[in-house]
Amino acid sequence: MLKIHAIGGYSQIGKNMTAIQYDDEIVILDCGFWMEKVIGFENGNAADLQLSQLYKEGIIADDRQFRRKYGKNVKAFIISHAHLDHLAAIPMVAPEYEKVPVIATPFTVEVLSNLNRERGKNKWAKRFKNKVIKLNAGSSYKISKNLKVEFIYATHSTPQTVMIALHTPGGTILYANDFKFDEYPAIGRRTDYDALRKLAPAKCLISDTTRINRESKTHSESIVKAMLKDVILWTENKNNLIVVTTFASHISRISTIVDFAKDIKREPLILGRSMSNYIMAAERCGIIDISARAQVWGYKGPIIKNLKKVMKDRGKYLLIVTGHQGEPDAVLSRMTRKELPFEFKKDDEVIFACEVIPAPINAANRAHLEKQLRNLRVRIFKDVHVSGHASREDHRDLINIVKPKHYVPTHGGMEKLASAIDLAVEMGYKFGENAHILQDGQTLELK
Amino acid sequence: MLKIHAIGGYSQIGKNMTAIQYDDEIVILDCGFWMEKVIGFENGNAADLQLSQLYKEGIIADDRQFRRKYGKNVKAFIISHAHLDHLAAIPMVAPEYEKVPVIATPFTVEVLSNLNRERGKNKWAKRFKNKVIKLNAGSSYKISKNLKVEFIYATHSTPQTVMIALHTPGGTILYANDFKFDEYPAIGRRTDYDALRKLAPAKCLISDTTRINRESKTHSESIVKAMLKDVILWTENKNNLIVVTTFASHISRISTIVDFAKDIKREPLILGRSMSNYIMAAERCGIIDISARAQVWGYKGPIIKNLKKVMKDRGKYLLIVTGHQGEPDAVLSRMTRKELPFEFKKDDEVIFACEVIPAPINAANRAHLEKQLRNLRVRIFKDVHVSGHASREDHRDLINIVKPKHYVPTHGGMEKLASAIDLAVEMGYKFGENAHILQDGQTLELK
Amino acid sequence: MLKIHAIGGYSQIGKNMTAIQYDDEIVILDCGFWMEKVIGFENGNAADLQLSQLYKEGIIADDRQFRRKYGKNVKAFIISHAHLDHLAAIPMVAPEYEKVPVIATPFTVEVLSNLNRERGKNKWAKRFKNKVIKLNAGSSYKISKNLKVEFIYATHSTPQTVMIALHTPGGTILYANDFKFDEYPAIGRRTDYDALRKLAPAKCLISDTTRINRESKTHSESIVKAMLKDVILWTENKNNLIVVTTFASHISRISTIVDFAKDIKREPLILGRSMSNYIMAAERCGIIDISARAQVWGYKGPIIKNLKKVMKDRGKYLLIVTGHQGEPDAVLSRMTRKELPFEFKKDDEVIFACEVIPAPINAANRAHLEKQLRNLRVRIFKDVHVSGHASREDHRDLINIVKPKHYVPTHGGMEKLASAIDLAVEMGYKFGENAHILQDGQTLELK
Amino acid sequence: MLKIHAIGGYSQIGKNMTAIQYDDEIVILDCGFWMEKVIGFENGNAADLQLSQLYKEGIIADDRQFRRKYGKNVKAFIISHAHLDHLAAIPMVAPEYEKVPVIATPFTVEVLSNLNRERGKNKWAKRFKNKVIKLNAGSSYKISKNLKVEFIYATHSTPQTVMIALHTPGGTILYANDFKFDEYPAIGRRTDYDALRKLAPAKCLISDTTRINRESKTHSESIVKAMLKDVILWTENKNNLIVVTTFASHISRISTIVDFAKDIKREPLILGRSMSNYIMAAERCGIIDISARAQVWGYKGPIIKNLKKVMKDRGKYLLIVTGHQGEPDAVLSRMTRKELPFEFKKDDEVIFACEVIPAPINAANRAHLEKQLRNLRVRIFKDVHVSGHASREDHRDLINIVKPKHYVPTHGGMEKLASAIDLAVEMGYKFGENAHILQDGQTLELK
Repeated sequence: MLKIHAIGGYSQIGKNMTAIQYDDEIVILDCGFWMEKVIGFENGNAADLQLSQLYKEGIIADDRQFRRKYGKNVKAFIISHAHLDHLAAIPMVAPEYEKVPVIATPFTVEVLSNLNRERGKNKWAKRFKNKVIKLNAGSSYKISKNLKVEFIYATHSTPQTVMIALHTPGGTILYANDFKFDEYPAIGRRTDYDALRKLAPAKCLISDTTRINRESKTHSESIVKAMLKDVILWTENKNNLIVVTTFASHISRISTIVDFAKDIKREPLILGRSMSNYIMAAERCGIIDISARAQVWGYKGPIIKNLKKVMKDRGKYLLIVTGHQGEPDAVLSRMTRKELPFEFKKDDEVIFACEVIPAPINAANRAHLEKQLRNLRVRIFKDVHVSGHASREDHRDLINIVKPKHYVPTHGGMEKLASAIDLAVEMGYKFGENAHILQDGQTLELK
Repeated sequence: MLKIHAIGGYSQIGKNMTAIQYDDEIVILDCGFWMEKVIGFENGNAADLQLSQLYKEGIIADDRQFRRKYGKNVKAFIISHAHLDHLAAIPMVAPEYEKVPVIATPFTVEVLSNLNRERGKNKWAKRFKNKVIKLNAGSSYKISKNLKVEFIYATHSTPQTVMIALHTPGGTILYANDFKFDEYPAIGRRTDYDALRKLAPAKCLISDTTRINRESKTHSESIVKAMLKDVILWTENKNNLIVVTTFASHISRISTIVDFAKDIKREPLILGRSMSNYIMAAERCGIIDISARAQVWGYKGPIIKNLKKVMKDRGKYLLIVTGHQGEPDAVLSRMTRKELPFEFKKDDEVIFACEVIPAPINAANRAHLEKQLRNLRVRIFKDVHVSGHASREDHRDLINIVKPKHYVPTHGGMEKLASAIDLAVEMGYKFGENAHILQDGQTLELK
Repeated sequence: MLKIHAIGGYSQIGKNMTAIQYDDEIVILDCGFWMEKVIGFENGNAADLQLSQLYKEGIIADDRQFRRKYGKNVKAFIISHAHLDHLAAIPMVAPEYEKVPVIATPFTVEVLSNLNRERGKNKWAKRFKNKVIKLNAGSSYKISKNLKVEFIYATHSTPQTVMIALHTPGGTILYANDFKFDEYPAIGRRTDYDALRKLAPAKCLISDTTRINRESKTHSESIVKAMLKDVILWTENKNNLIVVTTFASHISRISTIVDFAKDIKREPLILGRSMSNYIMAAERCGIIDISARAQVWGYKGPIIKNLKKVMKDRGKYLLIVTGHQGEPDAVLSRMTRKELPFEFKKDDEVIFACEVIPAPINAANRAHLEKQLRNLRVRIFKDVHVSGHASREDHRDLINIVKPKHYVPTHGGMEKLASAIDLAVEMGYKFGENAHILQDGQTLELK
Repeated sequence: MLKIHAIGGYSQIGKNMTAIQYDDEIVILDCGFWMEKVIGFENGNAADLQLSQLYKEGIIADDRQFRRKYGKNVKAFIISHAHLDHLAAIPMVAPEYEKVPVIATPFTVEVLSNLNRERGKNKWAKRFKNKVIKLNAGSSYKISKNLKVEFIYATHSTPQTVMIALHTPGGTILYANDFKFDEYPAIGRRTDYDALRKLAPAKCLISDTTRINRESKTHSESIVKAMLKDVILWTENKNNLIVVTTFASHISRISTIVDFAKDIKREPLILGRSMSNYIMAAERCGIIDISARAQVWGYKGPIIKNLKKVMKDRGKYLLIVTGHQGEPDAVLSRMTRKELPFEFKKDDEVIFACEVIPAPINAANRAHLEKQLRNLRVRIFKDVHVSGHASREDHRDLINIVKPKHYVPTHGGMEKLASAIDLAVEMGYKFGENAHILQDGQTLELK
């Protein structure tokens, strides 16, 4: 008997949490935040809320009913990658499942440790004492007699992302949330297609729908490299400052930018708390060595000190900073508002190596930031970016490769899930029979 | 006394035609079609209309009043590049200015010859007897004692595009319509920045506004190369057919696609009349040799014959065809409607190496074509494309380089021109004083 | 045993066809065209296609498998209203179910007769010999021992629209496709809320989703009356011609426009084949008498004659014509292209009492028409319209009123249906349990 | 010699300020805020900023250079209506022109008094001692031997709006910023067309461009009345609370809502500081008596007290509150966040009798508010609104009526002004000759 419990991520883009049950054993896949709610939260840092508040604000999936009924059957948490919508609720929720271990790749474990440390600063918070198991991509781990987890390397926009294959006597569930198929990744290797092929025919594919309605293949990160080269190695740059802002967790993109800084003989300076956190995590795992090539500063003191240096000779530096969505408290916004000892000058450049994540709060924050930058006569370069999420044709390929008997789209509201079903029906699946829509709180038994 | 007569291209995107007057001598820059009207024209081929009809339908700029007044003062037509919105009205209009020569680069001259030949098939049409002068990029030509034209090489989306510098005793007019700044062009070289720098401070810059409201730099054609590589060198392609459709005049992109076909050991087949015409023109000028690497067919007979071949072993070929905007009569649409001896099969791929040119007729044609392709279970890859037109930051650079005393945006309706003025005002120009909006039919005297 | 067979209308907006089965008896609700396909059809009139072609082009629902299996169990066709996406396939499909009667309101029957007559002109077409039963709103008809159909009056954008209540021993199915809740209808009365209340709790509600994602209540047709008054009784209208174009089937709106013409002492002239057809149908049923107040002309001869009259004294007339979507063959387009003996003059007015129905072909046709009108200096007034379809809050009300045990949205693709499920879930339904998504070809058994 | 000095409102939608010079005498028309900047201002209330800060933040037009040069020539401020983008800078700027009187209609004067009182609470603020002259619509006032101002009644979205006709020996300037042509206004009368006709041919028309690109006539406020009737007199409303939010300055709409509350036997309760302020101003001028029909509360104490009452019997009340743009500090947002002693319940209704004013900050605020309301299961009715601004066809009419020799669009950025010029050119004006684009800081001499 094989069941899928849709706990979170099936009624919105975020707070991913899926449980797979084989007979009376259960594993939970991912446990994250709903970022839109986190960004919109107005009274301090959402990560410092009490558990009950997190439920009430809808920031984390509501696993309470599930836990009452099945809590004692849970054998493991397994985390696919280090993004907050997949990981960030672990420090609050895992302690409620006392002896359940958390399984993740080393980089994801590092990021989790940071989150646990921050959470621990709240004296009242339940301690995180769950066992943590590091499992590398390409490896397997036997959870119980019947359950074995295999980590399959996948390209995405943060290091050591894996697809999770859960092998059971009832067949294999492949959980591919999130991924892209990047044939020319900037660092790391391609998705492990051979491992995927071995799964065919899988019992069930659970995969994300973030960009399933874009009719194409998602382009390689190497495209962003070419775009950045285009913009940074620009003819008319001389004595102005160049500032690039991008996702702190996107280690490979940050590394690419550092390299280009070197190419144009500028000193790369990386500023911002989360930039520093993610880079340190990557370095501790031996993924990359950015600090050897660039200064990285996360705390206010050194940030201030370095910005003063920049003010004296702006043509010498290339800054990589937080704040790509116009977040009011990030380094870029504070530089723009002159809350840091820095002033933009005419013809300085700000390169947004990102897209605006579609939520009204981001649109408003970014519009506000850009208006201020334009008032300061700063040159703006937008949308130097490709997505880390699979497009429609990538999804078609994944389905073709693993040939799942059942298909369960996730990581989207009803309309995204519906678009995924359209694809499946196009490929010969039948809705309600072997292509399913679940909503948060629902359970599907696979026959 | 230096004057700019805005004849066409100042009230819509298309039918470019600008006259520059120094004392009593005049040259005309460009003379093209309004493509939106051409595509929307329903009773046959717009290029076969009588001159009076072309005026009436608004397909070409209305130069009649100008011609009556100044016709005898015109010393030359100068054409910037081979796109139809800059060139296509020459066969009809130039004969009205009897002894006036037409000056253009060799490739543009070849394309013009094709157009003249087609026009000549209409028995009633006035013969084109104007002298044609080939001038290479990087060269100059003395039109009269006071007027000298210099061709400055510029990157764009068709070969041998130039910016036109008209040197007069009253100063130099730079006509940059169209261009992009591509640092890594796929074929050819970079824009001739040195020649541009020598113009500074120019008397006046006339430049296009097609994409002036996009806040960035236009990316290099090398990005499209990387995108195409991404899509064409795809994991799961095997026995299906790959079809790419793109702009027939975009020789460098076609060449890139041919190369990728070779890389995946497929035979490239180029089908379509205008594909053939542009490629032949490029080859006659020695720009590139595509026929050595690919078969190119423009006529119906061989197209049919080749499609039959393709039907027998579809995994062996990569087709490059006309029809990227869903034009009902182009090869791709006819293949889709089975009007040619060809049938699409499930999992064949169509790659649109283009954008949808923004006009409702294109949107409708493309939507119709895509729906048909989806019904046939063809995989669609859209928007594999970067523009050939400068974005806002490129325009800022051009202005910074040539430091014009006056700025006159062109190639757009009032709102595009207005957006260009916004940029100029941002850079210190004053609207009405040294940044000007002209409309079709107006004249500006430069002081 | 109660089953719903989703034959058409569950995978696109159009070709509605639903079958309800109680034990071994079946009735079919609606049988219409997919209008988007009809408009896009390029080789003549889609209504003249052979049945096999209609299936192949996807213009009508594919009932072939259903018919083979259940054809002999079908006891009746029941038609909700006279729009073509609900009715137009009856002349082709009903003859395939030989002895099955068609039940509809008198107006719908009149429109059906017109369609049958047109279809009959194709000599090869199977004759329509099905019995036709006229049933008034507010009445019931006993189809068999177990099945009784009740027609419940509903407001919509064409006369004598009904919701269909199918009473069975297993409970009542309410089929509400299409409707709006208009508290102040221009002609006719309000939806029969009392009849609806008596159904509660219904076994199942099947209702349309065309506008279910608009967050509001759909406004009353009385709003359009006020808008038209606003535009037509305008200060500065004098010697110009006023042309209004709207839906031919929207009898009440046409009547309103005729009244306003009288108010400003202009003679109303109604021109166009489908205008004439619908008006005659309404008059034959005694719904309204428009011909007493306005001339109505459907054939080319009188249209030409009348337009000549108009040309002589344009300030005397108000024209009501076909062509609101820019259809190339409708009267308005032909007037604009001067294919009729008519010329628009500066300051003539064209009022579009409609919206652009969202499909690329309509957008393109309308954009083309408007551009031509602007070239002729005609004044354009757009979007004088409110929808005939229920919005989100109307759907909430309907569900609140009939309190169905099951909810099955229809008349939309997967994404519209998904949006309907969102509403139901908001109201306490559970997806997959008592709120269902069906796709064309699927069957649901109600428990 | 007649000159127009464009001080503010010619480079953005807001901070209107135009000066008209005849020989050496000048009057200033309007003096307002840029509301987008005010809403986005994050450190307290923008109206409490020092004058220098207001300039720096770009909230008011920069008249400093103008004032240095012409300050002593200014004879009067004349205010068109009581909206903040036309009026709100008077308390700060007028004191800088010491002895210059301010001329406005009685209602506008009342609103100005409120603003002056608020401004006066800042001890450091320069006192407003300018003379204030009340002038009724339909009346004239002689400013000097050469200058006479006439107030022409115009419909708009706040009471006692006027067009300003400035009569000079050089001809009459008509300043129509803002207006609509409402043939059926809810209160007040129609625009004074006779007075307008007497101006023809005017020397110059200066008019707003807010909605000049909407192709239609702006509908009458009577449409909103019908829409509100539709939504409020709704079938299924019983024990739920009805909340309507709209513009505080839109007195006639508020009055309409109060009437409907009575019709459904609910007690209207008006809550919010600015609601109270505008209503009191209207009552003091004898425009309307709302307090006789509804309770109106502006201060926190009574608001709290009344909301407690509402909580006890929610079916008895209809609330009219501030907060239609989702402003975080307005009554509606505070009710939603439970910062007031109130809780929304399932099926309460919130009617937004407004549009979202197009600025990213408003979009974000509204999206946030609506999401919260939906979480509380509140029913939302959006866009119950028509604009107070003239559309394209209204502008065409105004031009036809006053037949100005020169046309100067205002109240918009370059692209809106450009769209206005398009209209003028369509009507036979020539850009640069008698249709002009000005930008903030520029001066035009009328010939």
